Amino acid sequence: MISAYQKEIYEQPEVHRLLLANYNAKIKEIAGIFRNKNYKFILIAARGTSDNAATYAKYLFSSMVHIPTGLAIPSLYTIYDQVPDMRGGLVIGISQSGQGSDILAVLKQAHAAGVDTLTITNDIHSPMAEISDYVIDVCAGKENAVAASKSYTGEILAVAMLAAAWAGDESRLKEIQKVPEWASFVLDQHENVKKAARWYAEIDKLIILGRGYNHCTTSEIALKVKEITYVTAEAFSGADFRHGPIALLEDGFPVVVLAPAGKTLADMQDLIREVKERKVRLSVISNDEHVLGESDYAIRLPADLTEWLSPIVVTIPGQLLALELAVAKGLDIDHPRGLKKVTLTM
Amino acid sequence: MISAYQKEIYEQPEVHRLLLANYNAKIKEIAGIFRNKNYKFILIAARGTSDNAATYAKYLFSSMVHIPTGLAIPSLYTIYDQVPDMRGGLVIGISQSGQGSDILAVLKQAHAAGVDTLTITNDIHSPMAEISDYVIDVCAGKENAVAASKSYTGEILAVAMLAAAWAGDESRLKEIQKVPEWASFVLDQHENVKKAARWYAEIDKLIILGRGYNHCTTSEIALKVKEITYVTAEAFSGADFRHGPIALLEDGFPVVVLAPAGKTLADMQDLIREVKERKVRLSVISNDEHVLGESDYAIRLPADLTEWLSPIVVTIPGQLLALELAVAKGLDIDHPRGLKKVTLTM
Repeated sequence: MISAYQKEIYEQPEVHRLLLANYNAKIKEIAGIFRNKNYKFILIAARGTSDNAATYAKYLFSSMVHIPTGLAIPSLYTIYDQVPDMRGGLVIGISQSGQGSDILAVLKQAHAAGVDTLTITNDIHSPMAEISDYVIDVCAGKENAVAASKSYTGEILAVAMLAAAWAGDESRLKEIQKVPEWASFVLDQHENVKKAARWYAEIDKLIILGRGYNHCTTSEIALKVKEITYVTAEAFSGADFRHGPIALLEDGFPVVVLAPAGKTLADMQDLIREVKERKVRLSVISNDEHVLGESDYAIRLPADLTEWLSPIVVTIPGQLLALELAVAKGLDIDHPRGLKKVTLTM
Repeated sequence: MISAYQKEIYEQPEVHRLLLANYNAKIKEIAGIFRNKNYKFILIAARGTSDNAATYAKYLFSSMVHIPTGLAIPSLYTIYDQVPDMRGGLVIGISQSGQGSDILAVLKQAHAAGVDTLTITNDIHSPMAEISDYVIDVCAGKENAVAASKSYTGEILAVAMLAAAWAGDESRLKEIQKVPEWASFVLDQHENVKKAARWYAEIDKLIILGRGYNHCTTSEIALKVKEITYVTAEAFSGADFRHGPIALLEDGFPVVVLAPAGKTLADMQDLIREVKERKVRLSVISNDEHVLGESDYAIRLPADLTEWLSPIVVTIPGQLLALELAVAKGLDIDHPRGLKKVTLTM
């Protein structure tokens, strides 16, 4: 029987199509309001998978809307009761369920201080949505697998739509329309991913390297692998990796490098050279022919994929890698030990 | 022969004494200026070990000075050339060497935009120091080991001094004076740390759990362990751990929990119960008798250690753990494979 996780991975192109069709106008409306607000900074509160969506949002809002964006510290709101002065800013909560009590606490205090709040969620009737001034529905439909897939790429697609609309960037808004097609393209790489997974399955470690906009993608892939395969997968920015963790590498160590074409590609090429000197088991996810040729297992991205949207697409082979590692290890994918779908953090 | 790393770990109480003696007045002067500036937000740029110092600073400035604080994204400055509008904020660079080219790029662009800049560094003649409006010397003296120790606790002590002075909090400024004595106390735990390390040495995985102010400490300890022992050590906030990675735990998995007395202790107690159910090898660093009694190997903290300063002190047994794991594995501590003291990131 096919797992709920696999089924939901395959629903992604359709979720993206729905979000683009149903929510474009609403997101443009919110973006139009935000453009006149002149926010001095943005704080984003999220946990788990949605924390990786928050990282993507941090990159896009910083670079495309030019507003300094940081991740909120929920424990200051729930445990220490010593919070920053949020006035003049926008506070965003991101959550599949819209129920995380610590994220809700951040939104509540922002709201009480008269600060604008936005929630991006898969449940528009959730407590987080109800307390927020603005709400974006990621339109993923009910997500049954404990490991989130479609809700994550839905969240970051919503973030991309909001950032492009907020920046008033029509050419980017056009590019976004290609996302469902790109998502289908990488689903067709499933067999290649399966081969890499079989080759990795005997080792219970994995390192995922990426940079720039795909910083979030490295963390999200590592999280999926940890959640359903119990492999100690670790994500690194190429930059931070050279500052210490590169010492970990030894013969046969499994390494996945995210190297979509774009401004970070040259640096990832250098890093590929450096890790190959250490004789690792290298799999590369890329749309650059040269880089694909360098890897032991190549996973292909669409040729026309644009860098800023690549996190939505590059995540998908990572989800499949986690799936196939779990299959190769004979694990129960929809019931990972010790996890629940909704985690209530105080 | 004793390693440079061990020698420098033991120099820490003296470094802290020097910093407190030489720099208190200067930091108070800078804090006095900052108090009148009314910064809307703070952006901190750092890499590697100093990135963990930046996380500590983010917690202190958010909670004690009440200014929203985020970590800068260096690649927006060096690769994408699309940066946030930093006006109205303060930009801080943290670096042992003061040479990281990407961190320098953040400071240069802030400076060019007329934004105030502060550098916290161990080399006040470095390029980062030279371009900054304000400079704090961490007074650690030359650091020879590739794995940073005294420069890290020097950096975060400087951050604590600045935050307390900026908040005008005399009682906290008094508490800081105890840091050198607390650092000496935990150095006396070396034998207990050695016992835990021997028990962990046969396994090449390690999980470090902490929360709140010690979020930075979990990451810093994991980084030290990775740098010099090649063990895949991973750090988690207790909160994020329950959102997925807890699935990793199985019989005999080595886990270190940071549980100093304070507002996060109750949550760490719950987490200790949860991880014990999974029959892990548990070592706890704490000053709470009950929690110490729960662990297989207990590492004691000073009884009067205050929570906000605990990261400076709790890091030290972590440094010793990395050291003793490397000793047990027969590794060359001062020459970890593939690492240099100064990493130049573009």
